[in-house]
Amino acid sequence: MNIKNIVVVSPMHKELQRLITAKKLQKNFRFLPEEHFTEQDLQWADTLVAFNMKATYNFSHLQWVHSLGAGVDKFLFKKKWNENVLLTRTICSFGQRIAEYCLSYILKDLQYHDQFHAFKKEKKWQPMTPKLLSEQKVMIYGTGEIGQKTAKIFSLLGVDVYGVSLSGKQKEVFTEVIAVDNHLSRVSEMDYFINTLPLTEKTEGLFNEDFFNNVSNSGFINVGRGASLNEAALLEALDQEQIRFAILDVFSEEPLPRNNKLWEHPNVWITPHISAVTTPVEAVNCFIETLKNLEEGLPLSNKVDITKGF
Amino acid sequence: MNIKNIVVVSPMHKELQRLITAKKLQKNFRFLPEEHFTEQDLQWADTLVAFNMKATYNFSHLQWVHSLGAGVDKFLFKKKWNENVLLTRTICSFGQRIAEYCLSYILKDLQYHDQFHAFKKEKKWQPMTPKLLSEQKVMIYGTGEIGQKTAKIFSLLGVDVYGVSLSGKQKEVFTEVIAVDNHLSRVSEMDYFINTLPLTEKTEGLFNEDFFNNVSNSGFINVGRGASLNEAALLEALDQEQIRFAILDVFSEEPLPRNNKLWEHPNVWITPHISAVTTPVEAVNCFIETLKNLEEGLPLSNKVDITKGF
Repeated sequence: MNIKNIVVVSPMHKELQRLITAKKLQKNFRFLPEEHFTEQDLQWADTLVAFNMKATYNFSHLQWVHSLGAGVDKFLFKKKWNENVLLTRTICSFGQRIAEYCLSYILKDLQYHDQFHAFKKEKKWQPMTPKLLSEQKVMIYGTGEIGQKTAKIFSLLGVDVYGVSLSGKQKEVFTEVIAVDNHLSRVSEMDYFINTLPLTEKTEGLFNEDFFNNVSNSGFINVGRGASLNEAALLEALDQEQIRFAILDVFSEEPLPRNNKLWEHPNVWITPHISAVTTPVEAVNCFIETLKNLEEGLPLSNKVDITKGF
Repeated sequence: MNIKNIVVVSPMHKELQRLITAKKLQKNFRFLPEEHFTEQDLQWADTLVAFNMKATYNFSHLQWVHSLGAGVDKFLFKKKWNENVLLTRTICSFGQRIAEYCLSYILKDLQYHDQFHAFKKEKKWQPMTPKLLSEQKVMIYGTGEIGQKTAKIFSLLGVDVYGVSLSGKQKEVFTEVIAVDNHLSRVSEMDYFINTLPLTEKTEGLFNEDFFNNVSNSGFINVGRGASLNEAALLEALDQEQIRFAILDVFSEEPLPRNNKLWEHPNVWITPHISAVTTPVEAVNCFIETLKNLEEGLPLSNKVDITKGF
């Protein structure tokens, strides 16, 4: 692949420009926010490096598109992709970040942070014994790099970790991996659910009424994609105590609109899509490494399988 | 040692009776709450198994005293102990429990739980990038079983962990162990402090104005003993932003009196001495194991060194 003209489109374009320029690559670059990105820039480029783009573009004449995020649904979900165009994505520290995000909220629950905080306001000394991680069963949806890293950290801490994947292929860090077609038969055993799945036609609306009817009194964490969750079904499940609390970092519509009922539910915690942030330094390192591997003909661990969608 | 008559004094006496009776030990037992415990019970016994006792007793005719807690200051601190009386303590899962307690509050800080919770109340979508554990330096006071277990778990998660002990003797799980006489020269580097030290004459008031004057913008967690902390100095340090927040599980006076100012400080979190709870099952298992080792003449890993006080 002969890469010459690279256009970088991102809200972080200035920071990326500073970091990439310092690497003195022998390439032509344009750095832009999406609102200044034009058809003329797209025609000039053979490579696009971009974060989630709002508008729809035709990338089919490019050689390579590199996503600055882990999710590539903005490029692939319900869209056509020219299979001659290489698509790669950023992975970096996402597994560690997502693991720490999820762990923080599970520990908050096990250690009764909210209860003790409420007692403190009343100056009430009321002991409750925190629960141990080693007494918990967690089901992680997605057994790729992010799911495996999360499972590994949870296992090290004594959690009993189950995986759910399309194939159900066993992977070492999980007690058991279950195929998504069979997951409903196993969900009643679980204390917590973590969704890390990419958005594809197979994962859209996966967490629906059927799913929630099979669980009881569990915690639900979504760090995958908002559209994998049926929000109305979740709100009903919270009221039925099938779900005790939900931690949501991703939503069908982002930013989450002010009139969305999730904002007001007392057992829903909302974070603004920050569980797996790409810092500019990490994004640049991952891009440069991918470029280097590509030019040297080395294998690409972050190449997207277009037919799978991730 | 020939043990015949064992008196068990604890608020959990009924549960302990049920669990110990099921073990069918060939010993005479009395199970009592402290308010029913008399001089006559003490004279009858050769062994006392007890939780923190409120009153002062003379145990010098006993063969063995086993503490149902990890701390033995209620027996030793500013008291005389007959060195012919064996003193043992409960260790069990305390290290794991304390590690999870501390980790939960450090992650709450790194993941901005409070900030996102406040944004949620205003329906405000405002991204902030959580900080990673691998970017943190934590200083753990106490390098015994509990400090080491905590350090091990934190290290596994990528934290850079320093220890402080009386001797400064290096131990593998710490990046470095510093002698308590030199700790002030190193505290300015640290993001978080965790005190797990027992209360002895050397640890009383250790976290005083001098200590706080050497730190800036750090988190402080006390799971050791309340009297190691000078509460007035902490309140001053919070107002000076030397300490960003304090998580306190132990206090000089417990339950914490309602008129104590700590209750009202917005950056103080209070838990009612629950970070290392002895569950009845664990307490009984530890007692039985100690009894068995004692009768078989095996080494006792939980024997208290009276001269050290822990």
